[in-house]
Amino acid sequence: MRVLLIGGTGTIGKSVADKLKPNHEIIIASKSNGDYLVDITSLDSIEQMYKDIPNIDAVISTTGASHFGHLSDLTPELNEVAINSKLKGQVNLVLIGQNYINDGGSFTLTTGIMMDDPILKGSSAAMANGAVASFVKSAAIELKRNMRINSVSPNVLEESLDKYGEFFKGFNPVSANRVANAFAKSVEGAQTGQVYRVY
Amino acid sequence: MRVLLIGGTGTIGKSVADKLKPNHEIIIASKSNGDYLVDITSLDSIEQMYKDIPNIDAVISTTGASHFGHLSDLTPELNEVAINSKLKGQVNLVLIGQNYINDGGSFTLTTGIMMDDPILKGSSAAMANGAVASFVKSAAIELKRNMRINSVSPNVLEESLDKYGEFFKGFNPVSANRVANAFAKSVEGAQTGQVYRVY
Ligand SMILES: NC(=O)c1ccc[n+]([C@@H]2O[C@H](COP(=O)([O-])OP(=O)(O)OC[C@H]3O[C@@H](n4cnc5c(N)ncnc54)[C@H](OP(=O)(O)O)[C@@H]3O)[C@@H](O)[C@H]2O)c1
Ligand SMILES: NC(=O)c1ccc[n+]([C@@H]2O[C@H](COP(=O)([O-])OP(=O)(O)OC[C@H]3O[C@@H](n4cnc5c(N)ncnc54)[C@H](OP(=O)(O)O)[C@@H]3O)[C@@H](O)[C@H]2O)c1
Repeated sequence: MRVLLIGGTGTIGKSVADKLKPNHEIIIASKSNGDYLVDITSLDSIEQMYKDIPNIDAVISTTGASHFGHLSDLTPELNEVAINSKLKGQVNLVLIGQNYINDGGSFTLTTGIMMDDPILKGSSAAMANGAVASFVKSAAIELKRNMRINSVSPNVLEESLDKYGEFFKGFNPVSANRVANAFAKSVEGAQTGQVYRVY
Repeated sequence: MRVLLIGGTGTIGKSVADKLKPNHEIIIASKSNGDYLVDITSLDSIEQMYKDIPNIDAVISTTGASHFGHLSDLTPELNEVAINSKLKGQVNLVLIGQNYINDGGSFTLTTGIMMDDPILKGSSAAMANGAVASFVKSAAIELKRNMRINSVSPNVLEESLDKYGEFFKGFNPVSANRVANAFAKSVEGAQTGQVYRVY
């Protein structure tokens, strides 16, 4: 398959790329470092990406930023980070991409455990995660041309404990390899409308 | 209690107002018809409302618009309706309201069954519902001054079958009275972080 992996230079993305590389052609898109540069917060940039990279069988998003901070400091403006990036960025990859990718192609988006199991400072990210998870479930019953869509909700990664460990005290970190397996299941399997929880 | 009911002129809102009126002071806010006019898609309008209506013990939102349409016709622009109204409108009632309402006050927001049980044409609304449900769950662990927050997810209402029956074939409609009970449970009870599913 020809796989477009947005966020493929990140912690999760690199692990997904390694997992799929032996059997698929992987095109890595990211904001500043990939084979192709895209900004998911820009509709024009997403549309241009799909025009520039034709014949895609699977779109994977392992990206999406959110502001982390206490609810009492979360202003509507700071909440826009998650809305523009993790939420709209990923949803728009689907809304636009449904017009471009191959028949039978798939979308796999990323959420995260705090939508189910909240953490301090995580309300904005939880909001975006919940939006993406419910959108995916609903979009799955309407996608045409046998396209499929799933989301992956990772626990905190072992590989990210230095960065995020403080936020996830008492959580059981998972390996990037286990998380990458969920993406592989979505791309190489036949299910649709699923939330793959890697907890 | 002094209850601020945003969307209180609507189908669900009227039923909530009737349920709470005997025991509480209800202030009905809505876009064009209430005791107080507010537009939840405007940050200034929300902020002004909280300044104009002090001493609130409970904020209830029974409002939030979404575009209904097939996924193949759902453009990023049409998806903004739900993002600006049902999602950001309701979340911003909390982000701003946390600075205004009384100690021990509560927020109760509205989602809907299609986040769990998707329908055709419902992806944008499902997205907003999922966002609100996860935000509420997460915000609950961080609200200060003993404030609480819950959401109510109604099935289609018996009273709304004329308007929405076509979308919800095979669903078991619920009475506005049962839905209003869930709002009363949130306001008059002591729970927080709950999704009250009225299915
Ligand atoms: N790591 C964890 O423990 C964990 C757990 C649960 C959920 N998640 C979620 O998984 C996702 C990825 O996490 P990660 O830790 O792998 O992130 P990461 O290492 O920071 O990588 C982020 C990736 O996204 C790209 N990117 C950033 N902004 C972009 C934009 N506007 N447009 C296009 N690409 C953009 C980056 O590109 P450049 O490198 O080119 O800038 C990079 O490839 C996030 O949504 C995160 O919330 C992570
Ligand atoms: N009815 C159902 O079967 C059902 C089932 C599940 C979920 N829901 C959800 O429950 C919520 C209410 O549904 P409903 O059927 O009761 O709606 P409705 O009868 O259409 O009433 C909507 C209410 O919201 C107000 N409103 C609209 N836009 C507003 C804005 N920008 N700012 C402030 N107020 C605004 C309206 O005010 P004005 O009258 O002054 O314009 C009215 O009071 C919606 O989010 C809906 O998706 C409904």
